[in-house]
Amino acid sequence: MITGKNFIGNELIGNGKVTFKTYDPVLNKENEWTFIEVSDDELQRAVQLANVAFEVYRNVSGDQRAVFLEQIADEIETLGGELLNVFSKESGLPTERARVERSRTTGQLRKFAELLKEGSWVDARINTSTDASTPDLRKLNIPIGPIVVFGASNFPLAYSTAGGDTASALAAGCPVIVKSHPMHAGTGEMVASAVVKAAKKTNMPNGVFSNLNSSGIDVGVKLVSHPYVKGVGFTGSINGGRALMDLAAKRDEPIPVFAEMGSINPVVLLPKYLQENLSEVVEMYANSITQGAGQFCTNPGLLLGLKSDLIDQFAIQLGQEVASKEPVCMLHPTIHNNFEKGKKNALNENASVVAKYEGQSNSNCGEALIATVSGAEFLQNTKLHHEVFGPFSMIVKCESISQLEEIIAKLEGQLTGTILATEDELISNNSVVDKLRNRVGRMIWNGVPTGVQVNPSMMHGGPYPASSDVRYTAVGVDGIKRWVRPAAFQNWPDQLLPIELQNENALGILRMVNGEFSRKSIN
Amino acid sequence: MITGKNFIGNELIGNGKVTFKTYDPVLNKENEWTFIEVSDDELQRAVQLANVAFEVYRNVSGDQRAVFLEQIADEIETLGGELLNVFSKESGLPTERARVERSRTTGQLRKFAELLKEGSWVDARINTSTDASTPDLRKLNIPIGPIVVFGASNFPLAYSTAGGDTASALAAGCPVIVKSHPMHAGTGEMVASAVVKAAKKTNMPNGVFSNLNSSGIDVGVKLVSHPYVKGVGFTGSINGGRALMDLAAKRDEPIPVFAEMGSINPVVLLPKYLQENLSEVVEMYANSITQGAGQFCTNPGLLLGLKSDLIDQFAIQLGQEVASKEPVCMLHPTIHNNFEKGKKNALNENASVVAKYEGQSNSNCGEALIATVSGAEFLQNTKLHHEVFGPFSMIVKCESISQLEEIIAKLEGQLTGTILATEDELISNNSVVDKLRNRVGRMIWNGVPTGVQVNPSMMHGGPYPASSDVRYTAVGVDGIKRWVRPAAFQNWPDQLLPIELQNENALGILRMVNGEFSRKSIN
Repeated sequence: MITGKNFIGNELIGNGKVTFKTYDPVLNKENEWTFIEVSDDELQRAVQLANVAFEVYRNVSGDQRAVFLEQIADEIETLGGELLNVFSKESGLPTERARVERSRTTGQLRKFAELLKEGSWVDARINTSTDASTPDLRKLNIPIGPIVVFGASNFPLAYSTAGGDTASALAAGCPVIVKSHPMHAGTGEMVASAVVKAAKKTNMPNGVFSNLNSSGIDVGVKLVSHPYVKGVGFTGSINGGRALMDLAAKRDEPIPVFAEMGSINPVVLLPKYLQENLSEVVEMYANSITQGAGQFCTNPGLLLGLKSDLIDQFAIQLGQEVASKEPVCMLHPTIHNNFEKGKKNALNENASVVAKYEGQSNSNCGEALIATVSGAEFLQNTKLHHEVFGPFSMIVKCESISQLEEIIAKLEGQLTGTILATEDELISNNSVVDKLRNRVGRMIWNGVPTGVQVNPSMMHGGPYPASSDVRYTAVGVDGIKRWVRPAAFQNWPDQLLPIELQNENALGILRMVNGEFSRKSIN
Repeated sequence: MITGKNFIGNELIGNGKVTFKTYDPVLNKENEWTFIEVSDDELQRAVQLANVAFEVYRNVSGDQRAVFLEQIADEIETLGGELLNVFSKESGLPTERARVERSRTTGQLRKFAELLKEGSWVDARINTSTDASTPDLRKLNIPIGPIVVFGASNFPLAYSTAGGDTASALAAGCPVIVKSHPMHAGTGEMVASAVVKAAKKTNMPNGVFSNLNSSGIDVGVKLVSHPYVKGVGFTGSINGGRALMDLAAKRDEPIPVFAEMGSINPVVLLPKYLQENLSEVVEMYANSITQGAGQFCTNPGLLLGLKSDLIDQFAIQLGQEVASKEPVCMLHPTIHNNFEKGKKNALNENASVVAKYEGQSNSNCGEALIATVSGAEFLQNTKLHHEVFGPFSMIVKCESISQLEEIIAKLEGQLTGTILATEDELISNNSVVDKLRNRVGRMIWNGVPTGVQVNPSMMHGGPYPASSDVRYTAVGVDGIKRWVRPAAFQNWPDQLLPIELQNENALGILRMVNGEFSRKSIN
């Protein structure tokens, strides 16, 4: 079922010379399949096809694009248990997680299909002519062009081949070229085969989707530099995301890059709430920190409390709780090694360990760890502000609320900010709340940052470097806005306008007509 | 009334050593006022103030911000005829144009005030909790931080100190630091005094607005590089805009730049329509090309027709009509010189002149010119694709529709694309229309691209290099989207949410609640 080849549009091709394999971190050995890195000719052809496909695909109706997306979801489900097995073999993540991620992936595709069928997302604006000197002017969102999507290491399905970036770009009317993540190229090929099958069944133009294998950086560099490529979606490290941003900014024609990068997701623990809910908070955070071996971009890596016996008690209990958990296999030996290095670096910087796992962990398993550090030390040592990807969190014992505020104000941009507080504490610390809000994309009260809802209210993004452009979300249907641009039509003949802008509101979408929102037709 | 100093927040300061003067291109001499370039200390203080003001201003209600914007409009009107005089002395533009531009400027401010009072622009999304595992999640748009606005040479009011960029950023809740355009620093200081007066009267925080004088590029470079600055608005040349984009992209924290740059605004002339409306088209385009000495970003600089007796006839008539007009004073000797150079360069490239102005024009007046060139020559010589800023347009005589399509596909991004065609011609040339739409922000049927309506349906922006980010418009209330980001709140106590997200919809705004648009409260 897995050939190791690339999908260049609808065709499986693999004439390249370089090959690589994926790795099973649980068995600690290479998987059986051999992947053929895309050749330069094949890459050029994929981009050419996408460019030609765009001429057709940008005029495919929303309803037809919805059918395509739904068909992709169906085809992914048709891959059955084999997809879940390959997913686990290439990530070390359990089948249950594969199942959850698959349903998130198909769910996302179907939500974008719903969005297209409802149709109001195009933000139609109509200003009719009021007098001879005022033209009739109408506007809607149209796709920007072929998009390159980079699969994420930590979400082989939901943020990869047919994940949120691909689903939103295809929904927008943009062809997609996926640079498959080399750690899960087999999962990628299977999902790509589902997309290609769906494209064929629903008569989408050849080149609307391609899937390219690559284990190095050259392929990504070539794709992002290609003049036919008009946008980039990426989920991964700050270094990787920033390199793509720099590359895109240097082009003759700079293009938008949406990169969702690192985050340490600060959590503020206020004393009254902590006192009243100590054991619940310990349990909740021990789970949140260790869940999925801590390999989530919303993992809570920074816990900010006030220096006190209470915070010491919390640190000991959380440290012990976390250390008592059986270490979980990480995605790849490289990721495991980086985790061990990251922990070591943090501990070299005057941070102390509360408790350690006592057993003997299996290869590639990350031993969860809680460290503590003083507010003053954390403030002056920005090395401690960097993400340690994995089950690790640092408790900072602040001297005072004002030191805590100072720390928040000095943090880099974050995906999330959480505050554990009674309602009274929240009210009396409104300055903490305001400062935290200014550094993050999503605020959480008395919960954990892990667990990202896929709905219109989600903001998954944050001030740089949490993401490359804070004005967009990677998750939820508003993610489509990354790939569209407004197009206006002045004095255009009614029947030649896009259907969304014609006088008759045949789709019944919500439009702003002469300043008023309405689903009515214009007489 | 004009001191030549900088507004550092509410304070007029000018301790710098470098001075400069503005120029009256009609009298061909320097104006009387001396402007003091902002010193580094003053610049640092303006940014510091903006950063502190942001902490307050981001929490000022939409209604209060609306009062501020309306007050700015009132104060600009209070400046009276003196503002119009200074405007003309610094631009060579007639008082009537100053009057029109002033009313556009105050109109923009008042439209943003209306938008704020109506309130739905925050794009409120609410997903209530449906079961124990699904959190309550709500989202709205909040401001991104202090914005630097660069005034435009060709719109001393509407795209400058309190123009569209400033109005939209202040509406969004972002403090603004204006880098005043050195060609109209006096106009800038007067308008800045109106903004500062309004800020004081409506109790806005000191630093919500600053106005800095500078005749070189250092001040702009320092502002765009400053870590407290979170976004940039610019209207001007491709070179200038690109330099700012590059600078912003290289920062430790890259920030968004919205630059509205050059455009040659292609116009496609189809034969049947042209035949039937020859004299009207000649008159319409002679006016559009020469209006305001052609110093508009939407000036039609490229007319694409099919090689024929008809297009030759059109070229002669348009050339003669344009050459018969009295040359109009341009904004500045530098701009006039660049115009003369641009024309010469174009004519060196195998383009021919149809007719020339026969009289003796005054200093700094631009003699309007129509050139013609073959489709093959235009295709191979991309130098001819560059904007000649001023009253100049090039007629390209294409061999065939397919050559015309090839030319459109090879054009750089454009603000506008116009097609002059009968309805039948429009239908039978849908491929031309589709290709044109892919290169431009706004499509016009049987009209001229000059004349930019300020309403929600306007798209003033286009694929690079027409603007830096095709996903935004510089004109119309949607321009506010450049300066805001989504912020989500998870399980937040109702009464501590921003008012727009509370269960009770006190403002009666349109919100998406559990997938449905509604102005209702939540029970």
